[in-house]
Amino acid sequence: MLTSQNVYERISEILKGKRNELTAVSDRIWDFAETRYEEVQSAEILAATLEEEGFDVQRNAGEMETAFVASFGSGKPVIAFLGEFDALSGLSQQADSATKVPIVEGGNGHGCGHNLLGTGAMAAAMAVKQLMEENKLEGTVRYYGCPAEEGGGGKAFMARAGLFSDVDVALTWHPWDENQVYHARMLATCQVYFRFTGTSSHAAFSPHLGRSALDAVELMNIGSNFLREHIIPEGQLHYAITDAGGMSPNVVQPNAEVLYKIRAPKISEVAAILERVKDVARGAALMTGTEMEIQFDASSADLIPNATLGKLMHKHMEATEAPSYTEEEYAFAQEVQQTFSAEEKAAIQKNEDKILSRGILDFPSEPGFFRGSTDVGDVSWLVPTGQIYVTTCAFATPFHSWQLVTQGKSSIAHKGMLFTGKVLAASALELLQKPDLLEGIKAEHLANLDGETYQSLIPTNTKPAPIKRKK
Amino acid sequence: MLTSQNVYERISEILKGKRNELTAVSDRIWDFAETRYEEVQSAEILAATLEEEGFDVQRNAGEMETAFVASFGSGKPVIAFLGEFDALSGLSQQADSATKVPIVEGGNGHGCGHNLLGTGAMAAAMAVKQLMEENKLEGTVRYYGCPAEEGGGGKAFMARAGLFSDVDVALTWHPWDENQVYHARMLATCQVYFRFTGTSSHAAFSPHLGRSALDAVELMNIGSNFLREHIIPEGQLHYAITDAGGMSPNVVQPNAEVLYKIRAPKISEVAAILERVKDVARGAALMTGTEMEIQFDASSADLIPNATLGKLMHKHMEATEAPSYTEEEYAFAQEVQQTFSAEEKAAIQKNEDKILSRGILDFPSEPGFFRGSTDVGDVSWLVPTGQIYVTTCAFATPFHSWQLVTQGKSSIAHKGMLFTGKVLAASALELLQKPDLLEGIKAEHLANLDGETYQSLIPTNTKPAPIKRKK
Amino acid sequence: MLTSQNVYERISEILKGKRNELTAVSDRIWDFAETRYEEVQSAEILAATLEEEGFDVQRNAGEMETAFVASFGSGKPVIAFLGEFDALSGLSQQADSATKVPIVEGGNGHGCGHNLLGTGAMAAAMAVKQLMEENKLEGTVRYYGCPAEEGGGGKAFMARAGLFSDVDVALTWHPWDENQVYHARMLATCQVYFRFTGTSSHAAFSPHLGRSALDAVELMNIGSNFLREHIIPEGQLHYAITDAGGMSPNVVQPNAEVLYKIRAPKISEVAAILERVKDVARGAALMTGTEMEIQFDASSADLIPNATLGKLMHKHMEATEAPSYTEEEYAFAQEVQQTFSAEEKAAIQKNEDKILSRGILDFPSEPGFFRGSTDVGDVSWLVPTGQIYVTTCAFATPFHSWQLVTQGKSSIAHKGMLFTGKVLAASALELLQKPDLLEGIKAEHLANLDGETYQSLIPTNTKPAPIKRKK
Amino acid sequence: MLTSQNVYERISEILKGKRNELTAVSDRIWDFAETRYEEVQSAEILAATLEEEGFDVQRNAGEMETAFVASFGSGKPVIAFLGEFDALSGLSQQADSATKVPIVEGGNGHGCGHNLLGTGAMAAAMAVKQLMEENKLEGTVRYYGCPAEEGGGGKAFMARAGLFSDVDVALTWHPWDENQVYHARMLATCQVYFRFTGTSSHAAFSPHLGRSALDAVELMNIGSNFLREHIIPEGQLHYAITDAGGMSPNVVQPNAEVLYKIRAPKISEVAAILERVKDVARGAALMTGTEMEIQFDASSADLIPNATLGKLMHKHMEATEAPSYTEEEYAFAQEVQQTFSAEEKAAIQKNEDKILSRGILDFPSEPGFFRGSTDVGDVSWLVPTGQIYVTTCAFATPFHSWQLVTQGKSSIAHKGMLFTGKVLAASALELLQKPDLLEGIKAEHLANLDGETYQSLIPTNTKPAPIKRKK
Repeated sequence: MLTSQNVYERISEILKGKRNELTAVSDRIWDFAETRYEEVQSAEILAATLEEEGFDVQRNAGEMETAFVASFGSGKPVIAFLGEFDALSGLSQQADSATKVPIVEGGNGHGCGHNLLGTGAMAAAMAVKQLMEENKLEGTVRYYGCPAEEGGGGKAFMARAGLFSDVDVALTWHPWDENQVYHARMLATCQVYFRFTGTSSHAAFSPHLGRSALDAVELMNIGSNFLREHIIPEGQLHYAITDAGGMSPNVVQPNAEVLYKIRAPKISEVAAILERVKDVARGAALMTGTEMEIQFDASSADLIPNATLGKLMHKHMEATEAPSYTEEEYAFAQEVQQTFSAEEKAAIQKNEDKILSRGILDFPSEPGFFRGSTDVGDVSWLVPTGQIYVTTCAFATPFHSWQLVTQGKSSIAHKGMLFTGKVLAASALELLQKPDLLEGIKAEHLANLDGETYQSLIPTNTKPAPIKRKK
Repeated sequence: MLTSQNVYERISEILKGKRNELTAVSDRIWDFAETRYEEVQSAEILAATLEEEGFDVQRNAGEMETAFVASFGSGKPVIAFLGEFDALSGLSQQADSATKVPIVEGGNGHGCGHNLLGTGAMAAAMAVKQLMEENKLEGTVRYYGCPAEEGGGGKAFMARAGLFSDVDVALTWHPWDENQVYHARMLATCQVYFRFTGTSSHAAFSPHLGRSALDAVELMNIGSNFLREHIIPEGQLHYAITDAGGMSPNVVQPNAEVLYKIRAPKISEVAAILERVKDVARGAALMTGTEMEIQFDASSADLIPNATLGKLMHKHMEATEAPSYTEEEYAFAQEVQQTFSAEEKAAIQKNEDKILSRGILDFPSEPGFFRGSTDVGDVSWLVPTGQIYVTTCAFATPFHSWQLVTQGKSSIAHKGMLFTGKVLAASALELLQKPDLLEGIKAEHLANLDGETYQSLIPTNTKPAPIKRKK
Repeated sequence: MLTSQNVYERISEILKGKRNELTAVSDRIWDFAETRYEEVQSAEILAATLEEEGFDVQRNAGEMETAFVASFGSGKPVIAFLGEFDALSGLSQQADSATKVPIVEGGNGHGCGHNLLGTGAMAAAMAVKQLMEENKLEGTVRYYGCPAEEGGGGKAFMARAGLFSDVDVALTWHPWDENQVYHARMLATCQVYFRFTGTSSHAAFSPHLGRSALDAVELMNIGSNFLREHIIPEGQLHYAITDAGGMSPNVVQPNAEVLYKIRAPKISEVAAILERVKDVARGAALMTGTEMEIQFDASSADLIPNATLGKLMHKHMEATEAPSYTEEEYAFAQEVQQTFSAEEKAAIQKNEDKILSRGILDFPSEPGFFRGSTDVGDVSWLVPTGQIYVTTCAFATPFHSWQLVTQGKSSIAHKGMLFTGKVLAASALELLQKPDLLEGIKAEHLANLDGETYQSLIPTNTKPAPIKRKK
Repeated sequence: MLTSQNVYERISEILKGKRNELTAVSDRIWDFAETRYEEVQSAEILAATLEEEGFDVQRNAGEMETAFVASFGSGKPVIAFLGEFDALSGLSQQADSATKVPIVEGGNGHGCGHNLLGTGAMAAAMAVKQLMEENKLEGTVRYYGCPAEEGGGGKAFMARAGLFSDVDVALTWHPWDENQVYHARMLATCQVYFRFTGTSSHAAFSPHLGRSALDAVELMNIGSNFLREHIIPEGQLHYAITDAGGMSPNVVQPNAEVLYKIRAPKISEVAAILERVKDVARGAALMTGTEMEIQFDASSADLIPNATLGKLMHKHMEATEAPSYTEEEYAFAQEVQQTFSAEEKAAIQKNEDKILSRGILDFPSEPGFFRGSTDVGDVSWLVPTGQIYVTTCAFATPFHSWQLVTQGKSSIAHKGMLFTGKVLAASALELLQKPDLLEGIKAEHLANLDGETYQSLIPTNTKPAPIKRKK
């Protein structure tokens, strides 16, 4: 059996050897900057790399063009690494620049660091495969190429397709401005389009012959604002009018659309609120004499943390040498920090002018709670799921910002990505070798579920859809 | 056959003989001041007087406690006089006073002069009966005791009960500040209650468990305001919140109610708008998770004037001597005018400081249009209906005001009432004797209908209802 | 110095002697059932009793007709007992009945047990006075006759008048279905009327000349529902339309009014939300061309518990013999429980079919949080304030209900009231004799305030006002 | 002096000579298809042609790049021809095609026939100039190159610049599907942008820190829907949301904009309604804590017809030979008619399957009323203005449609344009020679104004602006 020390050393050596290749992949994905369900090149570069590495790759997984599953080994246990690679629209930005300079005005950019995410998880998968071979370990290591984390809920669609059905444990991570095991709950959420169709008419000559879809959207929104008082206090709903029916006031607008996002601690609560919102939409259609069509966009379940798994990852995080930084790296990070908002600067000052965070935060005694959402939540209902957050940028960098994009190809980012690969690999290797440990994790998982089972809000006939563009 | 001159003289003599009795009846009804569907004493004094006079009286007509039909003679033609006798709430006022002094604070008052209306129409019926007997005229004279003209649409319920099915022509009048044949269209209308029932809950502890009926009323009203743009330009809708669900903000209001009034030139248009408004109400119930119940209150059809009949009445109006007034009457009228608003005073000034209007206005070449409503409209769809408007008060007196109430027992009012009796009687007697004239009137009626038939919006199960009082 | 044992015995003897008088006073106040700021007889019976007992009584305290302060002794420390005595409207109910039978339909009733509250606090004041005299103790004991706890915020007005300026500690209690020291925070709140004045006009003839006050109320409510998303998550706002402008849809409503209740953890947060709501009201006035007038009704600060004081009271609560009950008392309580809702019955079942709660609940390690409000909060900002909750009714009795009213004269209620008198008196006597203890309580109070000072939202020119009745 | 017969013959000869040039200019403008205030090439081709013809051309008239005034002659009277040349967005379509085929997807097209309008009016100016020279007539003939009739109100800006101050009479026309003098009123109108600026915030983490501009737009629209009941019945308002603040529901939208169009019979009424709408917008800003900015877009006055001038034009219209059509022209027109809507086809059937309308409609006894708007209205307030409508397309062709665009270069269109040139020229020539006739026209104009003077709603600092494109 592999000794602990052995493992860390071998992993380090392996990933040192693949460093150039891995950073190149990450940088290419940064360049592609493809958004949800359109990450064709990004998915392919990862799939092809894994294939070359000896993984068996199933493309078009779950009938999604940019989803894939790469597999090595056979039998139990099945360890899954989750990788993401989608960019965000409107965040185009040159790399390594402390001023805001888009590459393409209005273009896409990796504002959430998923170029690193997908590649760092792949690094772990590669190292594990090699050590499984070297040590003839039993079991299966998988890499899940998960599209559309940003608003598209790719993992929920993959879950619906049954792709996680035989997985024992899932490991993943997220680029961040600190090093820690992520041990917190997050909100369940869903996004749904409501499209209204009425009858056009000249607004001055014959408004009485028109049936206004814009009226319907406005009345739906009014009804929803009245609804706020009557949903659970932890529930939230927000909306954006995605089609206001045109620029001309001279016509009764025959088409209009609004996109709702609903959040609540549990997916069942999201479902309950969604039913109420649907009734509001139906009411608005009735009031205006318009037709209403519901188009489900995406949803993700709440995130269930697993303390047993978290503590294991924390141990390996502490045992792995965290990156250190050069003067140039500090200087660049500090330069980027100059562009932050007052609020972020205050956070920096409060943390003793921290520039780059090297230490590992303590593992929390109780799970935290974070008002965001992720489709890792769906996986976390099906299998015990562990996540680490790793420094890849200057302290206090806001996410979904040009400042995050500009650091995405930096050596700081690359170091964090490789550190991640080591921690995830070490965690996986211990799990592969210690069935009891895995049982303990699974037992906690069952306890955490407390008798509930995973449900997804995605209707049977809903297909994953790319970003809607303004008409 | 009766000569014209004979008729006027005999009618005058007959009504001179009944003058004291008639003014006493009118004054008693003024005293009773009973509102819609509760005019028990008012209806009874008229019914009893006609019974005593030899009419055959059917009380509880159409199963309405305060509706009755008094009949004399037999066979065709059937001439109907329409009488009203309901008061208005909130208009209690002492008689013959040039200052506002309620008899009972918040009590009822005859603010529309229906004490005179009912009695003046009865005067005509009495005179016609006597002349039919004296001259052995064939046919039937009827007096319809019609309750609830003010918002209750009594005649629409009487029409539904088939009470006008064999009538050939209907004659009526209205107290006014000028003498004229009323030759104008009026709007069709309906009034409908929408009651919402939700679930009460403490507004601070558990608003999410509450379903707010007040929210539903508010959302219905919002929907209706959006609807305004999308109904025919001549249509109108207004509302009053008749139950806001209580005085405490600390509770989610489980009950609330709103009363809608809809108007349009034609009853079919009112019906179409009402369907839209019902959908708005259903939408509001859906939006709020409440139950909604529709309670139809009343409706009246648009008024169809008949020029042939109008011209006949105009002839008799001109041939009958109109009242002249004493100095005291002028002085009182002028004193009351001092209390009018600036707008009404301007109207007086524009009319050469007119105090009491004695002349007869010209018969208009084309029917006018008036944005009010009356349940005489329902009768006017079923049979040719003629109306005169007769001076019973100071020029420019506002209706539904204490100033109208205070003049309701004056000698000015009594004079107008008796003049009316003469004109209506003379018109009826000519109609009884000239079948051709009646045919012409009916022919015009058919032409006016233009192929349409009377429809009422009153649902089968709706019963006439008195005024709703605030809870 | 008084030994502990002495104290309990003497207090018991004293209150045994006054038992009949005290229960008679409580029962009379139950009979008076006077609502906020109209508790003329209720206040007077308490004031007169205390005067007779030798207290110096200042009536019309803070220029409020039904507020008074009764005082005995002189100098420091000043111990205040807070007494309430107002009833609730609409809760008239016969005593000792297990079925709902109002005495006067729609009348008032003591649905919150303030007849007991005011009298039980008086019992403590009497016992303390007597023991001060017997033992020549220094200091002052006061009884504050506090009107209008129910929505009227009497204590906030008394605080504004400076009536608590020299008080060292305040003690009070509340009738309840269990025995415990109340150690919890409660929400700050305010109630404000917004009255709109527009221009009346006939809704069919000339709606364009009208300016609708009802429109303004509706638009204000819409604006407030949109505002919900943009206030702090712990903040709340609710409203009731207190004047919808009349029952007739046929008129543009020229007057309308809405009452808002705002809640938040801190009074400064309530103030911030109130400013936003005022802007919404101003916006609604602008939108409709109406005038808007703000009429402040009442407010109360959040409640600050004091653990040092709470523990002291807990000690005396445990040391005092709690009431035991007869079979008849259990039978009656059980009979009343039969009328409870399913939810309340479930709570009973969950608590081993508890009928009457005799034990003392543990003192909580951390202060609780309760989403209600009380004007004791205002006092708790000015001086350290302690409260006990004492069993006076069947377990799980809902408050503000006929079931609470019907138990208000029962022997169960009287027993709880006298038990309270003993506990409060014993606590006060220890405080009178132990300056160090008092200092510790004050030190915690200062720490709890954390540098903030009491603020009241009541505008300078606002006067306390009785319940508004529906027009 | 010119005899009538002379005039018609000479005008015909002159325009026959210029036919090729004129149709070429019209076709080029059709090709340019430039929209409001960007008609640089269209204006230039007209200006250059007139300059070459001997007119004195003032470009950049009223500081508008695409406005110009071409003048010939001197002194009084001053006869103005009004020419328009702007296209519409979204109507790109190939010429002479009976199926919908855009040249450029989403491109512009001449959907209102202004290529013909501008050129036909120029034809008249050219003919008049030549006859003035030949006959040494006194006075001035002008051609006004008027940009941005479609929503931009170019003539209102030209009026503001004083460009019509010395004009005695204005003549113009519009392409249509029938031949007639246009003798009708049209509505005054204005278009105004309301832009709201709030504060962005994450909709889930910190909605209370956000100030939603989208909320403000929605509340403004709600307020405006409530306002509908309280403006004059003939007034109208409609709106389009021109910026909903983005596609993401996950952010509190910090920017949003809505465009209002207001119409009423008189510009003073439009102004009054606009003030109310501004207050609604201010109210919405107050309610939401956002900033609001008003950006005036354009306005046009109501159109005042002149019967004296109209009859003169009618005479010349009847005296001029109207175009006749070839079989091919009928066939093409009929083919286009096949693509019409059911409603339009019904209109064709009702008119005996009319294909191309050749006759001249009777001059109406009373001015009609049309619920549209035109900036010719502004000119019609300043000087007596006459308009003819001339057949240039298949009967019942809908305007602002691809069907109108496709006929814009057809021989049918060219024939109507040249016929127009003759009628306008003949009318102008009579006016040049008959001062009394002009006086009569001016006298009627003054009478029509009834003491009122022209007012424009355009704020001093507002500049003409091209079409806003969606962001």
